Amino acid sequence: MKPIAHFAPGPSQLYFTVEDHVRTAFRDGIPSLAHRSKEFEKIFHNTTEGLKELLGIPPGFHVFFAASATEIWERSIQNLVGQKSFHFVNGAFSNRFYEIAKQLGKHSEKIEVPFGQAFDSNPVVPADMELIGLTHNETSTGVSLTMEFINQFRNSHPNALISVDAVSSLPYPAFDYSKIDSVFFSVQKGFGLPAGLSVWIVNERCMAKAEQLLSNGHGIGSYHSLPFYLQNALKNQTPETPNVLGIYLLSKVVEDFLRRGVQTLRKETEYKAAILYQAMENHPMISAFVKEKNSKSKTVIVAHCGEHTGRLATYLENAGLHPGDGYGVLKKMQLRFANFPAHSKEQFELLVDSIEKFK
Amino acid sequence: MKPIAHFAPGPSQLYFTVEDHVRTAFRDGIPSLAHRSKEFEKIFHNTTEGLKELLGIPPGFHVFFAASATEIWERSIQNLVGQKSFHFVNGAFSNRFYEIAKQLGKHSEKIEVPFGQAFDSNPVVPADMELIGLTHNETSTGVSLTMEFINQFRNSHPNALISVDAVSSLPYPAFDYSKIDSVFFSVQKGFGLPAGLSVWIVNERCMAKAEQLLSNGHGIGSYHSLPFYLQNALKNQTPETPNVLGIYLLSKVVEDFLRRGVQTLRKETEYKAAILYQAMENHPMISAFVKEKNSKSKTVIVAHCGEHTGRLATYLENAGLHPGDGYGVLKKMQLRFANFPAHSKEQFELLVDSIEKFK
Repeated sequence: MKPIAHFAPGPSQLYFTVEDHVRTAFRDGIPSLAHRSKEFEKIFHNTTEGLKELLGIPPGFHVFFAASATEIWERSIQNLVGQKSFHFVNGAFSNRFYEIAKQLGKHSEKIEVPFGQAFDSNPVVPADMELIGLTHNETSTGVSLTMEFINQFRNSHPNALISVDAVSSLPYPAFDYSKIDSVFFSVQKGFGLPAGLSVWIVNERCMAKAEQLLSNGHGIGSYHSLPFYLQNALKNQTPETPNVLGIYLLSKVVEDFLRRGVQTLRKETEYKAAILYQAMENHPMISAFVKEKNSKSKTVIVAHCGEHTGRLATYLENAGLHPGDGYGVLKKMQLRFANFPAHSKEQFELLVDSIEKFK
Repeated sequence: MKPIAHFAPGPSQLYFTVEDHVRTAFRDGIPSLAHRSKEFEKIFHNTTEGLKELLGIPPGFHVFFAASATEIWERSIQNLVGQKSFHFVNGAFSNRFYEIAKQLGKHSEKIEVPFGQAFDSNPVVPADMELIGLTHNETSTGVSLTMEFINQFRNSHPNALISVDAVSSLPYPAFDYSKIDSVFFSVQKGFGLPAGLSVWIVNERCMAKAEQLLSNGHGIGSYHSLPFYLQNALKNQTPETPNVLGIYLLSKVVEDFLRRGVQTLRKETEYKAAILYQAMENHPMISAFVKEKNSKSKTVIVAHCGEHTGRLATYLENAGLHPGDGYGVLKKMQLRFANFPAHSKEQFELLVDSIEKFK
């Protein structure tokens, strides 16, 4: 049976318009388009301006393209950190950013809490940190940071750059962009697109930091250094031959999202999350892995199913509703459910019905 | 009018099977496939093993995926050069590799010849170079290196790693892999695929060099360091969420190429190149930019058209045969014609007929 819905948190279900956009792209010769052509520059412009509108990004921010969020972790450390970065670690992906900083020779520190738990709301972060790395939505565990948590660092650490990993949450969160400096996401999560493209949004403070590191003799990379990104972006171009088709498809899905309205997307996300958490709470064999209400992710919902995990997974798969495995060591005890714009209310209602009937 | 053929050297014309493979990919859920799944591992294995068979790559080489050849330039310098690299520069792309080495802080040197010309066949390269960078096919000018030129360095510089940029020539060239250590290409050229994926083929000498640099305290990057590439590739996986659809499409086109046979592809490439160079030679207003017979690229053919360039371009476009612009400052004097497996004999015969009739 062809699955009704893919709930793995990424690569995840495609947004329902994507296949049509691919057809149009082939009809219009997008995959053969030169990346130094006027046509490509128009696509670049549509994508970056559309994203700024959709996400409410104020003037003073730039939008750049990378191949993966993993690449953006590396580029962030190269371009934004001379010596010291600080990382809030509560799962596999926030830890990976910390590890990359260490691999790149930085004196990085972290506060770590057990998987599934929230950080102390008044954390102690040394004053001399150049970058504070926050993972808005930890994909491995389904823990979200509150906006209050994210926004506190601008005042407490005015000299630090605040980097927010929103890989598996955007376009849902409405960030206060005056409180953060760098945000990034991957298109195969909340934008319902094939993997192979990520988006890095940075402000002038990030640009200035990269320039300062460069003038102090730090290596900030080559083709994907922030200054070279900007030099090309000002022409609506990329430093290298990019994933042209991916950028085109992103522009089209952003148009679709704008037509639907970001408020509608956000309300639907909250509705779908609410009914799934409710169903988990009411079920005798299933519980939400994340206990603290304000830390429960709206976009990656993790169900602790213990000994029933394998049986529930098979039951849902037989109903055409493919859950995501728990992450790493949690695979045998948990299932993850992505709640992205690609997942319709009807699919979530069917998922909830099925879970309610599971015995 | 829908163009009959795209001769720009990349992104270029798609191989004729690609659109069907995309349809199949969507039908089979490839864009939603988890990159840690058995299904993805099978695709990874098919792609790398298929490439080894197609290109005649012997045991002891590994096949890794990057986002662009530009990325591979950077990764090559990071992983293979402690202090010194040497670059043969005869155009914009060979020079870019040299520039990236300098940006990454290396003491790099180059031999440079004017655009369109060949190197002295007995070049003087300092003995202590750790890497010698050769561009088999300089896409900006249509100059190819001979196999004799490439193969001489193994004997003359046994300690150097020989890196061959085959971005716009593979799968055409039959390299002697005992004489080279690192080869790379991008899929949007000779493999007729959408841009956003490149392939890096390295041997154990490259792996050993990266390990040695790492143990000596050199930074070799993080997720795309050679050791981490290999650690993942041994599981048929990639370090990051990759361009899954791109890797799948590459596996399918490689299968198509294997069915047609690499010898057939090579003979057709030579036939198409021969008739186009012949037509250029016979035409009073057009000449081959590259004069030396052995340096004339078979895969990117550059026509010097002088004052007739604009008129010839319009004439060909009106016939549905889109030429590539000359590169950079040569744009007003030259046209470039890609000769990849995606370009059929019939399309080349039509191109030649049209050029012969141009007055």
